[in-house]
Amino acid sequence: MTETDPAAWMARALTLARRGHYTTAPNPRVGCVLVDRGRCVGEGWHVRAGEPHAEIHALRAAGEAARGATAYVTLEPCSHHGRTGPCAVALAEAGVAKVVVAMQDPNPVVAGRGIGMLRQAGIEVEVGLLESEARALNPGFVSRMARGRPFVRLKMAMSLDGRTAMASGESQWITGPPARTAVQRLRAQSSAIVTGVESVIFDNSRLTVRASQLDLDDAEAIAARQPLRVVVDTRLRLPVAAACLREPGRTLVATVSGHDAERRERLEAAGAEVVVFPAGEDGRVDLAALLCHLAEHEQANEVLLETGATLAGAMLDAGLVDEMQLFVAPTLLGGEARPLFALPGLERMAQQRPLEILDVRAVGRDWRITARPVATGAEGLAKVP
Amino acid sequence: MTETDPAAWMARALTLARRGHYTTAPNPRVGCVLVDRGRCVGEGWHVRAGEPHAEIHALRAAGEAARGATAYVTLEPCSHHGRTGPCAVALAEAGVAKVVVAMQDPNPVVAGRGIGMLRQAGIEVEVGLLESEARALNPGFVSRMARGRPFVRLKMAMSLDGRTAMASGESQWITGPPARTAVQRLRAQSSAIVTGVESVIFDNSRLTVRASQLDLDDAEAIAARQPLRVVVDTRLRLPVAAACLREPGRTLVATVSGHDAERRERLEAAGAEVVVFPAGEDGRVDLAALLCHLAEHEQANEVLLETGATLAGAMLDAGLVDEMQLFVAPTLLGGEARPLFALPGLERMAQQRPLEILDVRAVGRDWRITARPVATGAEGLAKVP
Repeated sequence: MTETDPAAWMARALTLARRGHYTTAPNPRVGCVLVDRGRCVGEGWHVRAGEPHAEIHALRAAGEAARGATAYVTLEPCSHHGRTGPCAVALAEAGVAKVVVAMQDPNPVVAGRGIGMLRQAGIEVEVGLLESEARALNPGFVSRMARGRPFVRLKMAMSLDGRTAMASGESQWITGPPARTAVQRLRAQSSAIVTGVESVIFDNSRLTVRASQLDLDDAEAIAARQPLRVVVDTRLRLPVAAACLREPGRTLVATVSGHDAERRERLEAAGAEVVVFPAGEDGRVDLAALLCHLAEHEQANEVLLETGATLAGAMLDAGLVDEMQLFVAPTLLGGEARPLFALPGLERMAQQRPLEILDVRAVGRDWRITARPVATGAEGLAKVP
Repeated sequence: MTETDPAAWMARALTLARRGHYTTAPNPRVGCVLVDRGRCVGEGWHVRAGEPHAEIHALRAAGEAARGATAYVTLEPCSHHGRTGPCAVALAEAGVAKVVVAMQDPNPVVAGRGIGMLRQAGIEVEVGLLESEARALNPGFVSRMARGRPFVRLKMAMSLDGRTAMASGESQWITGPPARTAVQRLRAQSSAIVTGVESVIFDNSRLTVRASQLDLDDAEAIAARQPLRVVVDTRLRLPVAAACLREPGRTLVATVSGHDAERRERLEAAGAEVVVFPAGEDGRVDLAALLCHLAEHEQANEVLLETGATLAGAMLDAGLVDEMQLFVAPTLLGGEARPLFALPGLERMAQQRPLEILDVRAVGRDWRITARPVATGAEGLAKVP
């Protein structure tokens, strides 16, 4: 097959990049195709941090055929000396004639350096082909680099009338197995899962990725690395017997100062990592500071928020939710059941929170609605110190 | 064009029948195609009650060419003497050789008589081609004939978190103009619009079909016939100044006995038709009896229920809702806002009301979810005396 449309080759590079969907974090998902006279001479994608970048895989596959070829890369080649040296240098040394880059490095401090190195080496560089697709590939990495906080995805399961549980707190899975698999995959692609202590106390959820529920070929390898569990626990109420403390992986308890040392020590002895954050105006953990911490100290790209109406509402009101995935079960729970969002102070129609619905699709007998708060990005950005 | 697949011809007849979508009530929507040697020699559809049936239009169009042809009809030809005589006789007299019928007459008392007349005249008859499509064409007529009550379609507009208005009762259109057009069309295809007196008091809605909002070629003709407005008003609280009483068309006020005569007379003087129904166990208008009345005395096929959480919940709990159309606006109104359904007594997950989601589609920037309560038909049937 020969193909002369550059967009088709970049689309191929994007497809390759997606193979790293569950494994590259904290690195970005990247794909690379080397093309000579309309034919692919080598391709590759980044698999996981510590292993070679996409360009190196593609160059190795091409060998001498890389000379004179055009490289299609979904992200600007790196200019820094990692384990394999700068990819920009490797491309130049292999004799690549031209590099087409979908998007610049989203870190404004380094953006353009890899491109500069290529140009200095006499290589023709084009930037911006399928850029929006390339950005969509790495919402977390882009957010962390550009805004200093992770991309926050809120997942909730609700009845068609917008309820998550009975008034008594009684709850159970209302969505079917395909929706549960979708949620497991959301967990698997996330660096961290954030929840509120109330959810942990009530549901005693483990917040883990279960290989058996992923329905993916490489499920065992994916589940071997558990996302960081983060429990927002202002008053340090997490029971030491909580199931999530006994699971593989780490559990971070986000609290504020002022608790007695013994309580904290007991939790730490049970395996929790207690981190003290500044308190917001309401006395609770400052959520923007928490997200900032996850980006800076945990290199968290994508964060999954799985919680109840109170914390979900607080995150939304703080402008910290980038995307919602609502799994809608075909059932009604009635007007007394628990709401999706507590949004205290929302009393007039003029205060309603507009959303943009991005996608609606069937997931088994349930439906998944993907939406984003309108203009939340800017608010969230402003709140991060 | 020649076409030998009988299903293709029946599909054409169904398409013709749909042209009567807004106009045939209380009659069913029916289409007819006459085919001879793979070619259409005449076609027609029923336009409105009092005018010729579909078969008569098709026979007139075919003239002598009907002799020896096959007729594809979406509903069993009638056997009764209406303004144009029985269609079964007309088909026989025209010399039609064969009749393919999608479905029998849904009235169990008359079903099969038209087919019997055709067979007695020596005509070959086949029944059941695309039957489910033919039934879907006339949910209201089928319901009225088979169950003695109309098909009840519940329409609601809600936020993504399942809310219809603020806690204060403040409300406004939350859906966009395309959704409003869709609702206008639902009204236009309905024989009656049922609402609760609270909705009328609070919103003072007119409950009319507005030609300007239908976005249809024959909007003026459609809006010339307004659906019956039905206000469920157990305590006879409808204000004589209500806007709906001053609109073209009729307003029926459904109440129970025991009110003073003067109040009733004042409402009647203002144009309302007050009808007394038996009270249910809760003292309110017996909703099954009301629907029975609308079928029997108003020949109502499709009824649109446009109301608040209380009446909507009561109808649902009584098993009287056949279909829901939920218009979902991309916005959040919060946990204090008004619920979609009041379902008193629903306190445990085991009591949840399962639905089947039939269709989800975009309507402008909003989404329309069509669902039906699981197993409600049987409950509703049992409640009708």
